[in-house]
Amino acid sequence: MAHRLGILAGDGELPLKLVEVCRATGRDVFVVAFNGESNPDCVRDVPHVWLDLGSVGSALRALKNAECQDVVLAGPIRRPKLSSLRLDGRGAAMLPKLLRARGDDALLTVVIGELESEGFNVVGADDVFADLLVDNGVLSARRPSEGEWDDVARGIEVVKAIGGIDVGQAAVVHRGYVLGVEAAEGTDALIERSASLRREERGGVMVKLRKPTQDRRADLPTIGIGTIDRAQDARLAGIAVEAGETLILNRDDVIKGTNAADLFLVGVSASESPGG
Amino acid sequence: MAHRLGILAGDGELPLKLVEVCRATGRDVFVVAFNGESNPDCVRDVPHVWLDLGSVGSALRALKNAECQDVVLAGPIRRPKLSSLRLDGRGAAMLPKLLRARGDDALLTVVIGELESEGFNVVGADDVFADLLVDNGVLSARRPSEGEWDDVARGIEVVKAIGGIDVGQAAVVHRGYVLGVEAAEGTDALIERSASLRREERGGVMVKLRKPTQDRRADLPTIGIGTIDRAQDARLAGIAVEAGETLILNRDDVIKGTNAADLFLVGVSASESPGG
Repeated sequence: MAHRLGILAGDGELPLKLVEVCRATGRDVFVVAFNGESNPDCVRDVPHVWLDLGSVGSALRALKNAECQDVVLAGPIRRPKLSSLRLDGRGAAMLPKLLRARGDDALLTVVIGELESEGFNVVGADDVFADLLVDNGVLSARRPSEGEWDDVARGIEVVKAIGGIDVGQAAVVHRGYVLGVEAAEGTDALIERSASLRREERGGVMVKLRKPTQDRRADLPTIGIGTIDRAQDARLAGIAVEAGETLILNRDDVIKGTNAADLFLVGVSASESPGG
Repeated sequence: MAHRLGILAGDGELPLKLVEVCRATGRDVFVVAFNGESNPDCVRDVPHVWLDLGSVGSALRALKNAECQDVVLAGPIRRPKLSSLRLDGRGAAMLPKLLRARGDDALLTVVIGELESEGFNVVGADDVFADLLVDNGVLSARRPSEGEWDDVARGIEVVKAIGGIDVGQAAVVHRGYVLGVEAAEGTDALIERSASLRREERGGVMVKLRKPTQDRRADLPTIGIGTIDRAQDARLAGIAVEAGETLILNRDDVIKGTNAADLFLVGVSASESPGG
């Protein structure tokens, strides 16, 4: 059992994603949210505290009181004006070091040093995700047929083309025919729409890959039981996601649901041609 | 006023497209459809005759009786087995020439020669379309703003990417954000869906280009009053289509409708960056 994870929540989607991952894996979590920086969604339903950015001492105390051993710095913090920092005593003591730091990486090194000097173990978001990344290969009991592998390959081609220009992450292909391509509507709407365009009662593969423009720490493609439900409702044949770049939440339930629905679920590489 | 056009209808979408163009332009048309070859849709509501492929004499007589002067050979004809040709007298007389012809082009030359020897003027499908191709530039009273030209440019980038791999012809972009990408659902469904994903009450550009894989004689992108109605219902800002590669049916009505809806309509080149 992993220790309680402390999250210092910056901007963007990453803190929320980390909270979701902790919830999905049953890991205890405590969030330090910063006024004017953090997304309120990432503290919903989890233990947390709201602080000013300069309240360094309060943040460290909160993490200790919550008995966090591992701490992750999640999402960017805008460099604030000195006048708006509202430094507490500990923050004021850190100030000279912070002012000497040139560039964001140097600043981060100071913050990490401070956390480590207090006995915290600073981990990367990638470490938290590592157990949840989809492996290469067939995860389901059902294996794709040769024609379905062809659809997977066509889907990879299409999603790479649209992902390369930062449009969408997913496409649905049936018998070589591209039923739908994702843009702003999201994967669920794509699946639903594609099913209505299919000429047969059942079939089609949903392929989802990380966009090359995505920061993998912040916005990895994610599948969960909801994805399986959508695919089952749409009577798809299966799902292909990018191995090593896709989070699977509640893996056991997802695999169980996939098998119950007689779907296939495969992890593929975007750079290689897939095959059985 | 152009003469009545005779269409020798082969396979595929081209004969139907030609009939639509004639209908839209008020040009008289007469279709010779071939049993087992032609799409029944292309004779609906227009004067026509169904014949066997070998009934050459009957075909020539039908074209003369219909007072066609211009004749177009539209869409491919599969090379039939000799035994299934059902040649009439005229067809039998042509047979030696046909048998000497090597390759489809040579065969076509024989057929064209035969039509010309009977006094018909054999024209290309491109000639029939020429007057209906969208020109480069702004066709509407309203001109795109600078930001809307940026959306046009982004749309061109996206549609070229999906068209290059034979997926779709169109995309909708609003303020740099790709709301939707066309695959199997068609342009009308794309427009409707994209409107519901837009964050503002009004705006967005629908960009449509010919797929490089499309045979331009058979399947040119087409806009008509229906396209304008869809765009108006969706409260788009405008439409950009590929100049020289897009048919505009009922041009006057389309321009009038575009202006009444306060939309912009522009012809753009897929290879150049558009701008005001």
